Amino acid sequence: MTAEILAVGTELLMGQIANTNAQYLSRRLAELGINVYFHTVVGDNPARLEETLKRALNRSDIVITTGGLGPTKDDLTKETISKTMNRELVLHEDILDGIRNFFAKRHRKMAEINKKQAYLPENSIVIPNPNGTAPGCIIEEGEKTVIMLPGPPKEMQPMFEATVFKYLKQRTGVILVSKMLKIFGIGESDLETRLMDLIESQNNPTIAPYASQGEITVRVTARCSDHNEASALLDPVVSEIKSRLGVLVYSEDGQSLEEVVFNLLKENGLVMATAESCTGGLLSERITDIPGSSEIFERAYITYANRAKVEDLGVSWDTLNKYGAVSHQTAMEMLNGLKQKTGASVGVAITGIAGPGGGTPEKPVGLVFIAAYVKDRFLCRKFELMGNRERVRNDACLHALDMTRRLILGVEQQ
Amino acid sequence: MTAEILAVGTELLMGQIANTNAQYLSRRLAELGINVYFHTVVGDNPARLEETLKRALNRSDIVITTGGLGPTKDDLTKETISKTMNRELVLHEDILDGIRNFFAKRHRKMAEINKKQAYLPENSIVIPNPNGTAPGCIIEEGEKTVIMLPGPPKEMQPMFEATVFKYLKQRTGVILVSKMLKIFGIGESDLETRLMDLIESQNNPTIAPYASQGEITVRVTARCSDHNEASALLDPVVSEIKSRLGVLVYSEDGQSLEEVVFNLLKENGLVMATAESCTGGLLSERITDIPGSSEIFERAYITYANRAKVEDLGVSWDTLNKYGAVSHQTAMEMLNGLKQKTGASVGVAITGIAGPGGGTPEKPVGLVFIAAYVKDRFLCRKFELMGNRERVRNDACLHALDMTRRLILGVEQQ
Repeated sequence: MTAEILAVGTELLMGQIANTNAQYLSRRLAELGINVYFHTVVGDNPARLEETLKRALNRSDIVITTGGLGPTKDDLTKETISKTMNRELVLHEDILDGIRNFFAKRHRKMAEINKKQAYLPENSIVIPNPNGTAPGCIIEEGEKTVIMLPGPPKEMQPMFEATVFKYLKQRTGVILVSKMLKIFGIGESDLETRLMDLIESQNNPTIAPYASQGEITVRVTARCSDHNEASALLDPVVSEIKSRLGVLVYSEDGQSLEEVVFNLLKENGLVMATAESCTGGLLSERITDIPGSSEIFERAYITYANRAKVEDLGVSWDTLNKYGAVSHQTAMEMLNGLKQKTGASVGVAITGIAGPGGGTPEKPVGLVFIAAYVKDRFLCRKFELMGNRERVRNDACLHALDMTRRLILGVEQQ
Repeated sequence: MTAEILAVGTELLMGQIANTNAQYLSRRLAELGINVYFHTVVGDNPARLEETLKRALNRSDIVITTGGLGPTKDDLTKETISKTMNRELVLHEDILDGIRNFFAKRHRKMAEINKKQAYLPENSIVIPNPNGTAPGCIIEEGEKTVIMLPGPPKEMQPMFEATVFKYLKQRTGVILVSKMLKIFGIGESDLETRLMDLIESQNNPTIAPYASQGEITVRVTARCSDHNEASALLDPVVSEIKSRLGVLVYSEDGQSLEEVVFNLLKENGLVMATAESCTGGLLSERITDIPGSSEIFERAYITYANRAKVEDLGVSWDTLNKYGAVSHQTAMEMLNGLKQKTGASVGVAITGIAGPGGGTPEKPVGLVFIAAYVKDRFLCRKFELMGNRERVRNDACLHALDMTRRLILGVEQQ
């Protein structure tokens, strides 16, 4: 089965945004064993859109469009698809009510032009949009299928996952089952060297490592007809990889490091607090981004200024003057203050230089001290992180989470 | 003049990487006033590449290809272009020496297959590649031009800047200059209605609104020969839009809301602190993500648990029991505690229900109270936000930033 992805939007052709939807959809389609031979981007121009849509329908089984479903007169994807496929646009009262509610909940009146979004091509499968006012739809025409989705990734992705992925999975018989091993604390090339023989000898399951923002994911994917067959193919490979990498593997199912820590805290009845300087709340934000985090997270002190470190965490001015705000001593005093002040059984303190300014020869940008405790066990480590401000802050959070994970598991020495 | 961008690479169709080259090139071409009507991505498949290249040459003046210039047999862009345009591939000895040096500098011997990269179509303008082994070239054929560039952005971008941009600038006398008006506090369709007559009557400058994550950008773009002419075209339109939208416009040059607040704090010698519950540090993280934020940000209290609200901010148990943690009263007590405890001249307190759990009929998911002060002026507002947890937290931050901006500007009543 072949598919192609047709993105509609002048903002893409102006270079204001990248076509990340095409990447997202391509990756998911590949997991279903559907071949993608073309990505195309056209602007909000009905003639060029129609020409491109017709060509796509000629050469591919499935055409997925993204964008051009907004309420404005520039948004013409739906009208062009309906015209090309000779379908009337019919009003869906339930969708219209949904759009009215969407605005009512925001204490705004629905503008008349939004009514346009409640129309869909006749005889199409509706794809509800819980995060916006533009629904999508699936239109089947003989052997061909057009799947129409909105442009904003925050709307498109949940719609694809909830409706389209399942729909396509049914059509393709074959299932692909993946294990996503998440790994932290080793470089990508080191990892590849350690797994090279496996990667080269395997074709079912396939083994594909890829790195992003300091973490590595190894996707092990079996192509099969049911989940029993999948386990038989996946389990031996996964355990071989785990036996080689040990505690470096923190998840088998693609969980993020914060989700793993979240679950460890929950399972062990622990409650966490953080004291952050250079990360400015990023660690606390990551943990509290997980639904239900109020069970395992008590509070955070973002002591950005020295004055706050002293007043909120009892760091002494002597320590700050003698060793500096970015030092082993300050990190430990922040942590001790946090432990004394809160009822948290788990604590993390981070102080460092995120840059681009503030570095010195003795204390360069990227120097970060992280201290952590779990009940009565302490750990304080020094890091020299690379990259820009965003990267340093991100990697500091990952190391803090990994130190917490290892302390809870009692494997901090490894 | 029209151009299209043709990216070659199966890794793009597999979703392993996003086509960021197309975005980069499109932005630069837009600045030159060159219209880009299509982006296409094809795999390492000569037949599909040739078909796509021929179509591109028929409908566009300029075709820019990226990728497929590597040494391996999969890399067929150059061969396909030469075949399509009936040009011989000729060996460039100087390029071959360059490739040999490239490897020598890295203490490696050039593999034989790399010799392939020293061949270019006859009668083409060479585009040197200082950062890799694949040179590019410009091929002129009558009215049509093909510009061939490698795929890795680290190689492609410097080559485009050093050679291609200048080449294209000479060919088009025109430049495009844009103003990016950023707007918060109005829906996309409301905005569209209020600017409809302008949008419809204008063609130079053009006016294009688009929304993303709760903010709206209105791009006003003038096509002209120099920057004086640009101002003459842009200024009246920009001031008309601003007079219609007033304080809803927070930036004219595409700045984010946090950057605008950052600058307002700096210009006014103000220092900020935050007290966050449902946003869990997201607001503090956003502000401190800006380099130099230590000048304008003092600290944050992430009082996730009630106990923390009481201990750190002096919220009374009575208030929490009587009105609940998510209430006007609690938000104001958090803010007062923040003001008394810190030296900050600007403060923001946020408490709400981010969901998915924790909602009740009286207090649904999305209910958020935000209180803010600037020196002695206070403001507390109630919001009922929509969408998932991430969206609620994001919108709460945007509202908090906008309230801060309005308080500093003294326009909170509007």
